[in-house]
Amino acid sequence: MFEAIKFGEDSRRISGPNPWVGALLESGGQKHFGRTQRPGGPHAEIEALRQVTSAKGSELFVTLEPCSHFGRTPPCASSIVEAGVKRVNIAILDPDPKVFGQGVKILSDGGVDVTIGVRASEAAHSLAPYIKHRSTGRPWVVLKLAMSLDGKVAAPDGSSRWITGAASRAHAHALRADSDVIIVGAGTVRVDDPTLTARLDDVVKQPERIVLGGIPEGAKVLPARSYRGDIEDLLGELGERGVLQVLVEGGPTVASEFHRLGLADQYSAYIAPAIFATDRARAALSGSSMESMEGIWRGVTSKVERLGNDVYLEIFSESATGLLNGLQREGIEMAKRLGLGFLE
Amino acid sequence: MFEAIKFGEDSRRISGPNPWVGALLESGGQKHFGRTQRPGGPHAEIEALRQVTSAKGSELFVTLEPCSHFGRTPPCASSIVEAGVKRVNIAILDPDPKVFGQGVKILSDGGVDVTIGVRASEAAHSLAPYIKHRSTGRPWVVLKLAMSLDGKVAAPDGSSRWITGAASRAHAHALRADSDVIIVGAGTVRVDDPTLTARLDDVVKQPERIVLGGIPEGAKVLPARSYRGDIEDLLGELGERGVLQVLVEGGPTVASEFHRLGLADQYSAYIAPAIFATDRARAALSGSSMESMEGIWRGVTSKVERLGNDVYLEIFSESATGLLNGLQREGIEMAKRLGLGFLE
Repeated sequence: MFEAIKFGEDSRRISGPNPWVGALLESGGQKHFGRTQRPGGPHAEIEALRQVTSAKGSELFVTLEPCSHFGRTPPCASSIVEAGVKRVNIAILDPDPKVFGQGVKILSDGGVDVTIGVRASEAAHSLAPYIKHRSTGRPWVVLKLAMSLDGKVAAPDGSSRWITGAASRAHAHALRADSDVIIVGAGTVRVDDPTLTARLDDVVKQPERIVLGGIPEGAKVLPARSYRGDIEDLLGELGERGVLQVLVEGGPTVASEFHRLGLADQYSAYIAPAIFATDRARAALSGSSMESMEGIWRGVTSKVERLGNDVYLEIFSESATGLLNGLQREGIEMAKRLGLGFLE
Repeated sequence: MFEAIKFGEDSRRISGPNPWVGALLESGGQKHFGRTQRPGGPHAEIEALRQVTSAKGSELFVTLEPCSHFGRTPPCASSIVEAGVKRVNIAILDPDPKVFGQGVKILSDGGVDVTIGVRASEAAHSLAPYIKHRSTGRPWVVLKLAMSLDGKVAAPDGSSRWITGAASRAHAHALRADSDVIIVGAGTVRVDDPTLTARLDDVVKQPERIVLGGIPEGAKVLPARSYRGDIEDLLGELGERGVLQVLVEGGPTVASEFHRLGLADQYSAYIAPAIFATDRARAALSGSSMESMEGIWRGVTSKVERLGNDVYLEIFSESATGLLNGLQREGIEMAKRLGLGFLE
């Protein structure tokens, strides 16, 4: 399943608003991989099935419950049954109400041996933006923080360039490429004049750029949309349009506002071994009204990675973690209810 | 050599003020390990040599240049020559002026095939406190920071308990056990009343505790020494007494003072996925007078480790890094000068 998750992630930048599912079909001692293609193209399971002349008696690993509905493609669950696949291992249920549990039911009714919960935690982490979107109608919000060890982003005089190193910046470009929309404050556009493009060789399409406030003529961020209004309304609108992931690039005022409102699902912090050691430096996050330790915000660390001289720390909010864990629990409960196999 | 370094580190808590050297003797297809024993006991090389009836034609890996002087034990370099060891691989030279280069010379003059610089970077990292002490006469100073993602240690109302998790606290106890002396501010003693003992099963001796300022009667830190005076004088005195590693446990006033004076060699930061997001919270480090990015303090990341939900970030100061790199360079230069083997 781990291989299927990794394989599916290679579709991340093309599959949206569909999930980047990965599938591994083990048939006749051979491994056949499939992943979701561009919208309208085949899903991961079908891609894998197409590679064999017969799938009779085979075993399939798929990162998300096979779909049960006629969308732009016929239901994968039915195709799997018809192909004669013997065992299907599913990481997590599909949170989309049109599929949830229906795919599993088609498989089970069709005599397929189903197990739910295989590498569920890793799959939920990989598909988090899709899960958030289909569960809540809103995009997964990533808050990017590039800061010193003491949580600062700019010196007292306002200067702020190059706190983190080249490896962090390359990683951040991949984060942009993985996002559908980038949100940035008007202040950052005025002061830093960033392009906010993903500068990588393998970028398929550049994310849409939204500036909260006015955009000066000739700003490098153009073409971009200027938005003045409620942030939650904006996220709702983006969700309706099928946007799965939004990257909030700052500056500190915008980042602090997303944090204060509890809108960030993922904190992607690039921490440099650098120290300002002055309260007069600009903090990456501020503006909360907490007074005692009871008011502290706590998240769950989902990834730690060394990037050259920096460290990358990925933290999920408690509500995002609850959403992912909840879906995993529902998978196990459904397996128990239907008498299917499960892994906790 | 990597095995020898790891093996030597098991003597870390008993060998001081001597270095925790590791040795690996490959003789007759067998591996024999040795490490420095308590002061007065045999050095690593001798421990390894003692395990074989004949070392003729054997190869030795040792993390530090073998000693050349009669201290409490006879010179190891002579013993190695007499034992008929064919090849000796040395990670780094001994910065102690009584040995520096002399050990290598005895080996080389004795017809031993010497290579310098094998896993030098890892060995220098492992023996950093010894290298600092013998090079400068002062102990290696570790600044411990246990803080939120945004670099805070206490809420606006002063409450501060349990920012980091159990895995971080266990790691910090090991850091205490690895230190000869713990320094803490009088404010922390008054407010938190810590014992500052290393609470681990395998602690050999508890570090000496020094409070900067007065100690209230009945404080849990007792027995402890109260020190009022210049910090640099204190470090000089500790160095003279053979103290290799000092751990500065805070609070923020003391930590900031060590940082401001440039006295910390190693920053051991435990970062929790927690956020205060208010400038009114107490910062782990403050009090610097930097105004622009040119004034930022920059270090070198030496270790990144995930500890449960927290991350451990170990950073060496530029001067400490320069010291360790300098010793490695000197080893290579000496090898070139004497026509010996070397690894860069």
